[in-house]
Amino acid sequence: MLVLSSPSGAGKTTISRHLLEQDKNLSLSISVTTRPKRPGESNGEDYLFVDREEFNLMINRGELLEYAKVFDHYYGTPEKPVLDSLSSGHDVLFDIDWQGTQQLAQKAREDLVSVFVLPPSMQELERRLISRKQDSSETVEFRMSKAADELSHWAEYDYVFVNNSIEESVTHVQSILNAERLRRRRQLDLTEFVKALREGQ
Amino acid sequence: MLVLSSPSGAGKTTISRHLLEQDKNLSLSISVTTRPKRPGESNGEDYLFVDREEFNLMINRGELLEYAKVFDHYYGTPEKPVLDSLSSGHDVLFDIDWQGTQQLAQKAREDLVSVFVLPPSMQELERRLISRKQDSSETVEFRMSKAADELSHWAEYDYVFVNNSIEESVTHVQSILNAERLRRRRQLDLTEFVKALREGQ
Repeated sequence: MLVLSSPSGAGKTTISRHLLEQDKNLSLSISVTTRPKRPGESNGEDYLFVDREEFNLMINRGELLEYAKVFDHYYGTPEKPVLDSLSSGHDVLFDIDWQGTQQLAQKAREDLVSVFVLPPSMQELERRLISRKQDSSETVEFRMSKAADELSHWAEYDYVFVNNSIEESVTHVQSILNAERLRRRRQLDLTEFVKALREGQ
Repeated sequence: MLVLSSPSGAGKTTISRHLLEQDKNLSLSISVTTRPKRPGESNGEDYLFVDREEFNLMINRGELLEYAKVFDHYYGTPEKPVLDSLSSGHDVLFDIDWQGTQQLAQKAREDLVSVFVLPPSMQELERRLISRKQDSSETVEFRMSKAADELSHWAEYDYVFVNNSIEESVTHVQSILNAERLRRRRQLDLTEFVKALREGQ
């Protein structure tokens, strides 16, 4: 379970898309949200778009691994697709914020690897928010004022880097993913292999 | 501080050589040993070759980070070159066995990253020991009988993989190295960077 967090606009969604293209063993966890669909987004691919009532039902039925309120809207992670991916041997990528990460860390602990992506500068962050043309200038201003708060949580993550270029950042996350897959505690099947080696087989 | 351990012949020396060629931020810790120089080895490059008396002096003067007896000979890690490399901003690669790793882990803890390389099979291990023509058949036999004991320590390491090909293995260790450099606790200089970001600079 790999979490990628950052202030809005720092590039985590672009990094995620590149990673999912090049690493076929990685599946994206599609979050559910009550926020309105932006132009170009599609339901079930970018998010599951639901209304407040449906979101509450999901909470009450215990279907969410984590959920949080961000910018007046609710965001959550449906549990079933994650468990299905994990049990089919896939690693799961989560594009969530620090609130979701804290909740996920409580449930997953050893299984969770968390990465925080820093913007190179606040000017660059604002430039990216404006250039993606998804938000009103009012929303951009609001996101910028929230970014400072989001940044304050960087030290709760296992890994951190500055997103100077998408290519470099994708390589960073792929290295983290490759390395974490080689962790001894994730390769308990090697116990049998080493036992056979030692018995001279 | 990156430790690479394996039974003799599993390929750690070849992997190390490739790593040092491609990663200019990595320095090799040259071990000191009392074992005789093999054909093709050079003093100060493969090992520092000393006699038993000189080795004892180094122990008594507290010049060794770790030392251990392996196959009737002594092996140790001189401390000064390691500290010099680290303080010049280099990462240091250690080609040492489980005994050295345990001692180093006691001294370095958080700073140490340890990797165990497994041979694909015992037949392959024997083939490699024979083909490198460095040891008498008696020594090969002795090394094979020791390999099973060395393998028993694989679970004390942070990372582990099977050396199926040199190329794949070098990529594995480079990923581990890249990822560990991105660990938040190794990037305390980012504290100032994030502080400046949050203050809008």
